[in-house]
Amino acid sequence: MLTEEIFTNLDQADPLAKKRDLFELPEGVVYLDGNSLGPLTRMARRRLAQAVQVEWGQDLITSWNKHGWYDAPARVGAKIGKLVGAEEGSVLACDGTSINLFKLIVAAMRLRKNRRVILSDKGNFPTDLYIAQGVADLLDKPELRLVETEQLEGALNEEVALLIISHVDYRTGRLHDMKAITEKAHSVGAMVLWDLCHSAGVMSVDLADCRADLAVGCGYKYLNGGPGAPAYLYVAPRWQSVIKPPLSGWWGHDAPFAFDLDYRPADGIARNLCGTQSVLGLTALEAALQAFGGLSRKQLRAKSEKMTQLFIDLLDQECGSYGFKLASPRNPAQRGSQVSLHHPEGYAIVQALIARGVIGDFRAPDFIRLGFAPLYLRYSDIWKTVAILKEIMATQAWQDPAFQYSSQVVT
Amino acid sequence: MLTEEIFTNLDQADPLAKKRDLFELPEGVVYLDGNSLGPLTRMARRRLAQAVQVEWGQDLITSWNKHGWYDAPARVGAKIGKLVGAEEGSVLACDGTSINLFKLIVAAMRLRKNRRVILSDKGNFPTDLYIAQGVADLLDKPELRLVETEQLEGALNEEVALLIISHVDYRTGRLHDMKAITEKAHSVGAMVLWDLCHSAGVMSVDLADCRADLAVGCGYKYLNGGPGAPAYLYVAPRWQSVIKPPLSGWWGHDAPFAFDLDYRPADGIARNLCGTQSVLGLTALEAALQAFGGLSRKQLRAKSEKMTQLFIDLLDQECGSYGFKLASPRNPAQRGSQVSLHHPEGYAIVQALIARGVIGDFRAPDFIRLGFAPLYLRYSDIWKTVAILKEIMATQAWQDPAFQYSSQVVT
Repeated sequence: MLTEEIFTNLDQADPLAKKRDLFELPEGVVYLDGNSLGPLTRMARRRLAQAVQVEWGQDLITSWNKHGWYDAPARVGAKIGKLVGAEEGSVLACDGTSINLFKLIVAAMRLRKNRRVILSDKGNFPTDLYIAQGVADLLDKPELRLVETEQLEGALNEEVALLIISHVDYRTGRLHDMKAITEKAHSVGAMVLWDLCHSAGVMSVDLADCRADLAVGCGYKYLNGGPGAPAYLYVAPRWQSVIKPPLSGWWGHDAPFAFDLDYRPADGIARNLCGTQSVLGLTALEAALQAFGGLSRKQLRAKSEKMTQLFIDLLDQECGSYGFKLASPRNPAQRGSQVSLHHPEGYAIVQALIARGVIGDFRAPDFIRLGFAPLYLRYSDIWKTVAILKEIMATQAWQDPAFQYSSQVVT
Repeated sequence: MLTEEIFTNLDQADPLAKKRDLFELPEGVVYLDGNSLGPLTRMARRRLAQAVQVEWGQDLITSWNKHGWYDAPARVGAKIGKLVGAEEGSVLACDGTSINLFKLIVAAMRLRKNRRVILSDKGNFPTDLYIAQGVADLLDKPELRLVETEQLEGALNEEVALLIISHVDYRTGRLHDMKAITEKAHSVGAMVLWDLCHSAGVMSVDLADCRADLAVGCGYKYLNGGPGAPAYLYVAPRWQSVIKPPLSGWWGHDAPFAFDLDYRPADGIARNLCGTQSVLGLTALEAALQAFGGLSRKQLRAKSEKMTQLFIDLLDQECGSYGFKLASPRNPAQRGSQVSLHHPEGYAIVQALIARGVIGDFRAPDFIRLGFAPLYLRYSDIWKTVAILKEIMATQAWQDPAFQYSSQVVT
């Protein structure tokens, strides 16, 4: 029997508890949507104000050198690299996830010219599939082959040039075994592109140890980089000098300020840059990453796993009769840092939660998504969430007409 | 004979004079580098602080709808559209210039399948050429044909699918006749992609009147959107529903939040979006654009032309004997909003100017570039600049070893 006291005690013993003070969360809110947009940190707020007033406002163009704007993609990339177990010099913070996907999918298809299949699963985030479709249309007819998530490993064969897979499924929170899948892909000669959008910052990702080839991820979810923050890309050292970037802009040039007429890719990871990057975006992201200081990936993962497990157990205990069906794996080893629930009234229930200060989100057709970010959530927030959910279900508060589905954008 | 009084009087009669108060320029600085990085406006500073604290910090994920984050690319695009004479709904603020170039070059080559030549000139900004090279490598072998700037019009023939041309040359400030060149290209069945990076915000650009096909431009130069601000792209209404975007990310999907497995491009200009955009970047850019409020493009162009002409005339008068050679056209109708000078000691002279608070920049091999932005520069700044330049040349102050060329990054 789980009691409120258990959750309070867990908070008191939590070695990550103090990290919450770094975040400027609205009063009284339980924020379970960090898998969509991470909250503001005081570091990001302060650094942005400084970058705007001093760097842009006073030092102007000299800031490209003086304040390290020019090096920011590599510098911020290195910090993200530590969160995903990447080798030194193998991550860049730049552009958006979709654009980075495009760069790396094209690069991989060029390396595996004698193979034509791009393999992915129907649970992958749609933009990954759309971008792969775009590449298939653009190049000399690769085939995008989509299978059910469960059939992915079985579908790996010697036709496959590239497997594109989300480490954690955006809808169900299902976690894939990066090491086993990468090994399986390599055994048939395929490369793997991992989408880390829903795992970096909460899972114990270890790209180098898994012998990963390529990866992308976004900066605005669990990395808390701000709305539309720069994304990142990873290229394993063994591929860095052989891949050929399709978005061959001047920032990826070997000598951008020589203004040569011919493109000549930079050595190493830098060739994957394209054009001028968002300095404000990189500034906020870099500052937000300070929140991870002093923590190991294992500590993050341990708290994340404990939180999702406690939520599931408490939901079973308190709300077992209200028709929720767990969409996430019950086995914690297969679960990311979110818990997704099926419920036919999912949309209205999420709205009722939001109205009571518990912010999660809804994904069609019937997914309630609740993200558990170990840096700023308290164990007592889990107790509070389930208590409010129970009240909503017991009083049928979700039936309020204001909470019914409308066609407005739901992000 | 030009005197200081003439410049002072011009400032007093200048209908744009008050706009300077909107900018937070460093004390005592003459900023002639707005063609590289526009200065901070108080609107951008205030709006960013508000977006960070209230929108991101307090309203979090709800801001996508509540504060119009989701519509920002189209909304900011519409504001830029007014500065470049675009039809309603034909400009999006998004991504970077290089990436937007890639989208539109591929789109054009798909429309002109029976032609293989991409034509441009050696004076075009290198990233335009690099991206075109990247497209040529990617697709079924188009040819990138580069000619001298003077030979561009003559090189337009029925082999040419697409002409890529900068409205104002980044190095010399040479202005091309948009209407005449577009007409010439259309007469041989070629499309034209205009790069407006060095003209939007200072020239009287009129895309619709010129029957332009496609255009791109950046947000961080004369639009003052901040370091690495989002860029923009223009697609003429007649092409919007027939082009096929190669970067087919979820933001360009007809129903991004339906999470369909298949890509289906949105109607109209929105299909040229790819992924989540930098909200902070768009916020700063949108706020900065307020500085153009109440002004016509003709007014901007008139002051810009007057300033560059006065600078050239005063330079002739005061510094005629110091070996400067005008790199920009002497005919104002062929000149953008910058004056470029050749000088064998160009690098050191620019450093000496910067040390005295006159900020311009240097471009290899020997170009001194001085940008004249009508929103925040005073006529008396021209007098001051030439006076300081004269002093530097008369005393040979540029010979200071601190000003000599080093291999550090020069942006």
